[in-house]
Amino acid sequence: MNILIVFAHPEPQSLNGSLKDFAVAHLQQAGHQVQVSDLYAMQWKAPLDSDDTRERLIPGRFDPSRESRHAFEQGLQSDDIAAEQAKLLWADAVIFQFPLWWFSMPAIMKGWFERVYAYGFAYGVGEHSDTRWGNRYGEGTLAGKRAMLLVTTGGWESHYSARGINGPINDVLFPIQHGMLHYPGFHVLPPLVVYRTSRMDADRYTTVQQQLAQRLDGLWSDAPIAFRAQNGGEYQIPQLTLRDDVAAQQTGFAAHIDQ
Amino acid sequence: MNILIVFAHPEPQSLNGSLKDFAVAHLQQAGHQVQVSDLYAMQWKAPLDSDDTRERLIPGRFDPSRESRHAFEQGLQSDDIAAEQAKLLWADAVIFQFPLWWFSMPAIMKGWFERVYAYGFAYGVGEHSDTRWGNRYGEGTLAGKRAMLLVTTGGWESHYSARGINGPINDVLFPIQHGMLHYPGFHVLPPLVVYRTSRMDADRYTTVQQQLAQRLDGLWSDAPIAFRAQNGGEYQIPQLTLRDDVAAQQTGFAAHIDQ
Repeated sequence: MNILIVFAHPEPQSLNGSLKDFAVAHLQQAGHQVQVSDLYAMQWKAPLDSDDTRERLIPGRFDPSRESRHAFEQGLQSDDIAAEQAKLLWADAVIFQFPLWWFSMPAIMKGWFERVYAYGFAYGVGEHSDTRWGNRYGEGTLAGKRAMLLVTTGGWESHYSARGINGPINDVLFPIQHGMLHYPGFHVLPPLVVYRTSRMDADRYTTVQQQLAQRLDGLWSDAPIAFRAQNGGEYQIPQLTLRDDVAAQQTGFAAHIDQ
Repeated sequence: MNILIVFAHPEPQSLNGSLKDFAVAHLQQAGHQVQVSDLYAMQWKAPLDSDDTRERLIPGRFDPSRESRHAFEQGLQSDDIAAEQAKLLWADAVIFQFPLWWFSMPAIMKGWFERVYAYGFAYGVGEHSDTRWGNRYGEGTLAGKRAMLLVTTGGWESHYSARGINGPINDVLFPIQHGMLHYPGFHVLPPLVVYRTSRMDADRYTTVQQQLAQRLDGLWSDAPIAFRAQNGGEYQIPQLTLRDDVAAQQTGFAAHIDQ
């Protein structure tokens, strides 16, 4: 299989760097093809702006989604964007690896999504009408591929528990896992989260490696998070609210998982 | 009063640009002092990296938080970071204005937080022990100041409702409002969210301007979101989970608001 690792950490000799190297070696030993987008090493351009197209549709006022659509459809995207889209299309599974900074991914990876997730590629795909709201949330360009977050954080597991002060980790990651991965069609595997990274010693590192190896071996067999499909009949369109009989009375992020 | 607007949109002639200009004029007419950090116009450097300090503590392996602490304490931060910290200290209220891209702030603003929120400035402040977990979540360098998000999105309000497919807007914004604003001490006002921006006409724009004017007039009097204080006795330390008798049985983001 083909695996893409999108990696965001400024230091190759960090815990993240070590785990990334381990993942690459482990996957290759299992016979898989691996590509790594090491965003800091690539000096990835983070901000989405008017330089992302080689030729503007409208030279004056810059409309991000209109220009993204035009550039994508006409093959006018900047080369770095097109190259990452090709990697996504090549991959059977994608691992997004990053330290949790301020409860989300580093800016450089956020900018990867903003720029690579073009209109026509990751959003604005398929029919948008009163009965169908695009191919998204379970359908889309990346449908059938698998994705997994590999996240490190200095906080303790209890800080991210059901009643922990930072909020439950699955809720903290929902805008990413649901909003950025389920959205263009990925099957999203449960995340591997490494907590309390300041207290890492050789024993714990060995344990973390073993956990990671297990998750890499399960990339094709582990059950994805059961996010609901937008166009599967459970949502009213165009309101995009859950039908009354689906997860009745439930509200919030958890209602969008078929539990 | 002194108001800082941190603004992230690549096009000055956008809806966001117009609302920002309106906010500046409205606040100035009311006699306030206003500064704007227009991140795209400033070509703000988004990625946090080893260039953020003028002199490294450890020239080899780059440890983001250790270097941030050293640079902050020794006055070695790059000038752009120090300038933004000074604006935050100057401000009585800060408005963060951005289009919601992939359910969070644009990368350029995420990078503003990562770099400006230095160790010793926004985190790693105060005593960290078994009985006290730093001055954060209600205490800290920015305690007493007010913050408000001004957010635009293409989605409909129903898409962000209690059972809407994107998740409730307050949950989508929780990692920002709680994790990035309440954390260093801000009082966080409810956000002003402008939905369905593709259907903006002159009438709606007038209405939005009026809503914004009202919110700007209420910056000093509107009630903040009642996020709980970490060190106020409601959390167990160091686990940082809610005490059993606080919001008993409740889990998730909402448990951290005193309702």
